[in-house]
Amino acid sequence: MKFLKSGFTREDLLRIDEKDLPVLADEVRAVIIDTVKKNGGHLGSSLGVVELTIAMLRKFDPLNDRIIFDVGHQSYPYKILTDRFDKFSTLRLKDGIAGFPRRSESPCDHFNTGHSSTSISAALGYAKARDLLHEKRHVIAFIGDASLINGLALEALNYVHETGTKVIIILNDNRHSISNRVGGFSTVLARLSANNFYKRIKNTIKSKGGVNLVHGLEKIRDTFKFMLKPNNIFDELDVNYWGPFDGHNIKKAEEIFELAKNYDKPVILHFNTIKGKGLPEAEADPTKYHQLSPANEKKSRTWSEAASKIAEELALNDEKIICFTAAMVTGVKLEKFAREFPDRFFDVGIAESHMLTMAAGLAAGGMRPWVFIYSTFLQRAMDQLMHDIALQNLPVVIMVDRAGLSGSDGDTHQGVLDISWCRAIPNLEIYAPCDENSLKEAMLIASKRNGPTLIRYPRGSISEKNLSPEIKNDGIVKISDGKKFALLAHGAAVQTIIKTRELAKKNDTEVPSLYDVRKIKPLDFNLLDEILKSHELVAAVEENYMPGGLGEAVAARIAEGDFNVKLIRFGVPDVCVKHATQDEQREMYGLTAENILSECLSAVR
Amino acid sequence: MKFLKSGFTREDLLRIDEKDLPVLADEVRAVIIDTVKKNGGHLGSSLGVVELTIAMLRKFDPLNDRIIFDVGHQSYPYKILTDRFDKFSTLRLKDGIAGFPRRSESPCDHFNTGHSSTSISAALGYAKARDLLHEKRHVIAFIGDASLINGLALEALNYVHETGTKVIIILNDNRHSISNRVGGFSTVLARLSANNFYKRIKNTIKSKGGVNLVHGLEKIRDTFKFMLKPNNIFDELDVNYWGPFDGHNIKKAEEIFELAKNYDKPVILHFNTIKGKGLPEAEADPTKYHQLSPANEKKSRTWSEAASKIAEELALNDEKIICFTAAMVTGVKLEKFAREFPDRFFDVGIAESHMLTMAAGLAAGGMRPWVFIYSTFLQRAMDQLMHDIALQNLPVVIMVDRAGLSGSDGDTHQGVLDISWCRAIPNLEIYAPCDENSLKEAMLIASKRNGPTLIRYPRGSISEKNLSPEIKNDGIVKISDGKKFALLAHGAAVQTIIKTRELAKKNDTEVPSLYDVRKIKPLDFNLLDEILKSHELVAAVEENYMPGGLGEAVAARIAEGDFNVKLIRFGVPDVCVKHATQDEQREMYGLTAENILSECLSAVR
Repeated sequence: MKFLKSGFTREDLLRIDEKDLPVLADEVRAVIIDTVKKNGGHLGSSLGVVELTIAMLRKFDPLNDRIIFDVGHQSYPYKILTDRFDKFSTLRLKDGIAGFPRRSESPCDHFNTGHSSTSISAALGYAKARDLLHEKRHVIAFIGDASLINGLALEALNYVHETGTKVIIILNDNRHSISNRVGGFSTVLARLSANNFYKRIKNTIKSKGGVNLVHGLEKIRDTFKFMLKPNNIFDELDVNYWGPFDGHNIKKAEEIFELAKNYDKPVILHFNTIKGKGLPEAEADPTKYHQLSPANEKKSRTWSEAASKIAEELALNDEKIICFTAAMVTGVKLEKFAREFPDRFFDVGIAESHMLTMAAGLAAGGMRPWVFIYSTFLQRAMDQLMHDIALQNLPVVIMVDRAGLSGSDGDTHQGVLDISWCRAIPNLEIYAPCDENSLKEAMLIASKRNGPTLIRYPRGSISEKNLSPEIKNDGIVKISDGKKFALLAHGAAVQTIIKTRELAKKNDTEVPSLYDVRKIKPLDFNLLDEILKSHELVAAVEENYMPGGLGEAVAARIAEGDFNVKLIRFGVPDVCVKHATQDEQREMYGLTAENILSECLSAVR
Repeated sequence: MKFLKSGFTREDLLRIDEKDLPVLADEVRAVIIDTVKKNGGHLGSSLGVVELTIAMLRKFDPLNDRIIFDVGHQSYPYKILTDRFDKFSTLRLKDGIAGFPRRSESPCDHFNTGHSSTSISAALGYAKARDLLHEKRHVIAFIGDASLINGLALEALNYVHETGTKVIIILNDNRHSISNRVGGFSTVLARLSANNFYKRIKNTIKSKGGVNLVHGLEKIRDTFKFMLKPNNIFDELDVNYWGPFDGHNIKKAEEIFELAKNYDKPVILHFNTIKGKGLPEAEADPTKYHQLSPANEKKSRTWSEAASKIAEELALNDEKIICFTAAMVTGVKLEKFAREFPDRFFDVGIAESHMLTMAAGLAAGGMRPWVFIYSTFLQRAMDQLMHDIALQNLPVVIMVDRAGLSGSDGDTHQGVLDISWCRAIPNLEIYAPCDENSLKEAMLIASKRNGPTLIRYPRGSISEKNLSPEIKNDGIVKISDGKKFALLAHGAAVQTIIKTRELAKKNDTEVPSLYDVRKIKPLDFNLLDEILKSHELVAAVEENYMPGGLGEAVAARIAEGDFNVKLIRFGVPDVCVKHATQDEQREMYGLTAENILSECLSAVR
């Protein structure tokens, strides 16, 4: 590398001659491609913003100014160019650099992200704090076109003018989002991109002497308004719009940033970029190269594949079945469903709230909608689940993917709240299958139920053989007999308790009874009571936060009943889950055969 | 009444001569004013839409077409004119007509509401179901201008074009929302209202023979586009916009509806209406007359008043304190704060998600934001609480008003999920004060804490004297001593356990120990363990759903510990809470002194 060397800082960046910056950009790309191919992570978005990041870091001070990356999967170049080049090879590894901005990681990271569309709200907050504290700094929201159509970003956009404060919104328009972008807004941006009116104006300004003339931009615009159709959605919302500009031209981007710094009103800077830029295969298939798995991850059949295949089979026999995703068609593996049932498939973009309420409307209208959503993103549609689906007892099926510990995306992406939050929702039934049999069984039941059903399943591989007996009966299912103590688990944790029993056998110690709690709500109290009566110790094992989880439901039964049994709960403790592999996370939080066995053995008499 | 008589149906409505309709409108208004003054309820919005509702019901068939009211507090005229005139005097009373649309109440109600901004998503769902089932019906979303700026509605608006289906969106623009409308969108609507371009076009169409010419509207518009600045935000999103029209002219509204019925694309019909129309005092002060309390409700000091007063005092001494509301400034009683600290007060409109994330931004920027929000509306910002506030451990205070059973607004408005949902959130501390002392104490602690704090307090009157000892220590506080059994409660339920003890004394039975659990998370295990050791029975009493509530937290302690104590949980069972007064709801769900005492006495030896 010519420029990127150990200890690289922003000062180094400022010293590089303008004409050499494309070389630096290539070096940054090489580091990203190399690391992501090894460790896994988000590739396309980061490759697309290398030049913009360089320009931003030359014009803004990352220690004093506040740069907020929306979602944050495009923050790799920023991490490399601020203070984390040396550690970048640890990206997404345990104790390594996080895959998203983290305030704990660097003074240059100003707002933690992971979920989309928070940046404009956060920037407005930061800007207001600056005004009230009489500080001097720029506040920048760096947001992609896909994030812009989420309700949170739109609420914030509507509020920009109202705050009367200055923020700079950099719109990184790569026209691809995670899958394809969706909705009327995409037309808006396409129209804007086809319009070179502002570009011409900018050139005029520049030729006439730069910064001081920038206010002329507005005047010129007003003059031409009636002739040139310059009105756009941002103008309508009283936010100044400049663009579109080429997001791969560092010099021009620096000029625009300089103009924006000296402008005294909130402004949106619209840049067109190419997702995956610099890696031909990623430019050609940006959806595939949005995120890569680690090189050493084994490619076996996933839960998502199993679930979508069953949905396809059900949909063949039931014309009322509709499937929804919010920009996660490849993540939840609905590509084939989308091809085979194009009329019965909706990708709403990053609009989880709208997705659930539209599903409620379809169900009220006589259809049977299935919503495929990651557990962590369901957090964004909880009121729609409660208010629009559950209170009306509508037959919507919520397929909750990536439930439980989900690995290296880190604390923002774990699926460890859904059981706690959803157990309190009336009319909703909750399944947590541990294998393909129980997944299929839950989906069959859900497909016929006259009310809402939630089915949560883990991230990663589904075991090739079934773990729990195939029983055409939901509730709790016995896997194997023991004597003094019983282990109850759901979902991914069933595999853990099976390992616990194997370990006990191997160690020649007391062997536990095993139970698969495939239905979390309502709980099968008949069998549960039998289990509580016939063991002296019961352990509930789950990949969910402990407050509100299965463990507490069992505890309530014990404390209110007439049992002589003790309980141990194994679950995710009350902390922010750190990024690491799923197995490392299980290790960190005591969800291993070794720990479960040892704790249980010390508790039995 | 000349027209409104017992047994009034839509057929009667269709038989009334066009010129007599204003008389009918007056009669509908009289019924609404009379009933709401007695029973309480939403006044202004319903008075504003009487004419639109009449026109809608003459042009659309409420049994076959699907009319979806956004929020639904403007549905009183619709209820009266469909099939509920005779029962309308029972509005919001136990077993009476609900204050919002309810599918269980009438075949004319097609989608339950209560929270805002769901109607466009639901309508798109209904319309898609119609298309797929090859049915013939119109689908109408009836939405107010305040609801339109919420993220859910904006996500749906963005998605209208994508669905390729026909929906009719009636925009009821009364320019007032619950308080004042907020943000860039309000300018958009004001500009549109000042523009009579479409009105002229419509007149042209009409004069040339009506319906068949409606498609000409688009052509004319396109022709004039470059001259007349017709672009607006709806056009930008590829949704056809017609308007603005006078929402109090029944005849004209019927004409517009007829045009829209025969038009084959999605269309927004923009009507201007006057909130509170027909009641001079309501027209003059629409915020005050948005909602009335029942005539017989005693006017004592409320929790909201107490909380906002303490916030004012704290803000006097701490310039970093900022207060937020989402369109509920009068509900949470922040009017005075807004006047005294205009720079440090934000009403973001109905945009709960944005509010929490902007608060996170302010906190990250060094301020101390306080968010005042009803428990039921916090459901709309759970991911922002988790992802933006809690995971970053930011010092945001969430003041959760109307927590617990909240009375006659019904199942959509109860505050019975917050404890279950928030107990699972890391870094968050949760207080549930029972009186002014403990409220103040919690707010003081929160004002100094370096992390997020949630304080939930009930709807209605705060007791004049303090119930629990003033102790400068959070956790669990003993109120009075008993022997065999202990009652633990938080918030409003503390009053209930005090009454239980009084009843026990009066009946000369075993008297319970009483404990005020003012801090729900983390729980004070030191005192809790003592309580569990020194009693044979413990009851947890709370106004929250039982799954995930305080009761389960206590149960987990019992089941995992070494205690010889039994538990009974009293809380809201796993049902949709029916509308009734708060006391009637307590009666319905066993949260009364009589029930608690009797259940506990049968359980103690």
